[in-house]
Amino acid sequence: MMQQALEPAPLFLGIDGGGSKTRAIIYQQDKILGTGVSGPGNPYHGFEQSIDSVISATQKALIDAELSPNTISQLVAGVGLAGVNLPHLYDRVSNWQHPFKVMYLTTDLHIACLGSHQGQDGAVIITGTGSCGFSDSGDKPLVVGAHGFPHGDKGSGAWLGFSAVEHVLLAMDGLADATVLTEKVSEVLGCRNDLELVTAISGQKSGFFAKLARTVFDAVDEGDQVAINIVKDGAAYISELARKLWQTNPGRMSIIGGLSPRLMPWLDKEVAQRLSAPLAPPEMGAIFFAQEQMAANQKSAKMTAEA
Amino acid sequence: MMQQALEPAPLFLGIDGGGSKTRAIIYQQDKILGTGVSGPGNPYHGFEQSIDSVISATQKALIDAELSPNTISQLVAGVGLAGVNLPHLYDRVSNWQHPFKVMYLTTDLHIACLGSHQGQDGAVIITGTGSCGFSDSGDKPLVVGAHGFPHGDKGSGAWLGFSAVEHVLLAMDGLADATVLTEKVSEVLGCRNDLELVTAISGQKSGFFAKLARTVFDAVDEGDQVAINIVKDGAAYISELARKLWQTNPGRMSIIGGLSPRLMPWLDKEVAQRLSAPLAPPEMGAIFFAQEQMAANQKSAKMTAEA
Repeated sequence: MMQQALEPAPLFLGIDGGGSKTRAIIYQQDKILGTGVSGPGNPYHGFEQSIDSVISATQKALIDAELSPNTISQLVAGVGLAGVNLPHLYDRVSNWQHPFKVMYLTTDLHIACLGSHQGQDGAVIITGTGSCGFSDSGDKPLVVGAHGFPHGDKGSGAWLGFSAVEHVLLAMDGLADATVLTEKVSEVLGCRNDLELVTAISGQKSGFFAKLARTVFDAVDEGDQVAINIVKDGAAYISELARKLWQTNPGRMSIIGGLSPRLMPWLDKEVAQRLSAPLAPPEMGAIFFAQEQMAANQKSAKMTAEA
Repeated sequence: MMQQALEPAPLFLGIDGGGSKTRAIIYQQDKILGTGVSGPGNPYHGFEQSIDSVISATQKALIDAELSPNTISQLVAGVGLAGVNLPHLYDRVSNWQHPFKVMYLTTDLHIACLGSHQGQDGAVIITGTGSCGFSDSGDKPLVVGAHGFPHGDKGSGAWLGFSAVEHVLLAMDGLADATVLTEKVSEVLGCRNDLELVTAISGQKSGFFAKLARTVFDAVDEGDQVAINIVKDGAAYISELARKLWQTNPGRMSIIGGLSPRLMPWLDKEVAQRLSAPLAPPEMGAIFFAQEQMAANQKSAKMTAEA
């Protein structure tokens, strides 16, 4: 007992690595010591870049916490990354010779869920550049969506922007009505005709189309029926996704991500009324995950010692 | 008059350069002397590769015609390429230091149209890996579609396969009905769940999805309602495109491309009944284009000389 009391409280690192940004947070005894932000953290789009982003965000958080760079070796890291739902990427990151004291790895969805419910079980819907749902309340974790763009991610920012572009191309051919949305998309992208539009969008990734989501909602605000139908269609999918998550009987369910405030009014009322406010950000969820994993490991080590 | 009679009949080269293949045909005095086939000819996907394919197909056609390689400098070339509807690619190919006697450049759509109607005005719908429509019967040539995958090309093979994958991903999440189509797509791609499917399709181009069009029609043959709805939706777009082309009052209209036989039964009856059989392939259309351009040039040269 004496020895335990003398040990310093563990220094936790929480990492949330997404498609465009990686956030780090350093936490000790209920106190945030520092935070840092770096670039893309999804190893699907580049393993080295993802690792670099994790290290860079951590170093920034250490500086922010006024801790020496060497402290990195004392960090108990909870790392949530997009892309590690794919088994080969989970294995690759797990086998990384990380500089931390210990690393607990999971998906960005899992830490978003843990953050939203302050470390308790629950479910979460994420609607930003992409879209997906996650629940850890059932027999095993349930992931809905998270399939990526352009084949999945319905109701996401990228999907809204892409759907708008599809409509504008049809309108430019005279095969759909040209509306306010057509004008706005053409203006934002600086395109006067379909050839220019095709040139502007060819090879563009999800982030490009997600930026057009704002334009879709601008058109909605002006009562544009085409934009309204696109948003309704996307929101209907998110409502379906929410109902699927409810089947796991989560105590709480939240919606997070940049698109969620704009999407809320279009969700089924019954769905919207069940949503609770997220309590903490995903990087805090990564801290909760590390705490939970460390406690479980200590318990199992104690049981082994006692056996 | 004497001098003209002594000149040998011009030796024509017709080139049809598409996304996956380039076809060449050598033609003199109503007779096909030889043909050749090489790789991708769309300069959008690589300028050098496109040029290499044109030269390679031409050399094969010269060998097939039992003509010496040097004969290439005598060829009056009609060249139809995918991608040169984009002005910067048209300019780049035009400025190519080609080895022919003369080169007349136009789009693959234009030569497909000229081929279908034996050099006369008309309209054509192409449904293969991609989809588009073309008419040279109005005041100026009309292109409908030809926007590319995945943002356009509705009703094409790539679009059918992609739409099937979108449905299968929803079904794997329990957000859509799992039907025969779901089974068949999973089997063809060797995927047991959504993670494996997302891994299999990520980053794939139009040709990959176009291969799944056959699977969609297999499911249609078994009465699968999801597959039938996808095909109906694609065919409805092609019918709309046909009606748009009819507004230019083409004397004839044809549908060509690998998907057209399977799509025909699903087109609006009124549209299907108006379609005429294509009379000659696109590479012959390229010959007609070269003949037409050469005749126009000679006429304008004569008028200049007489003035």
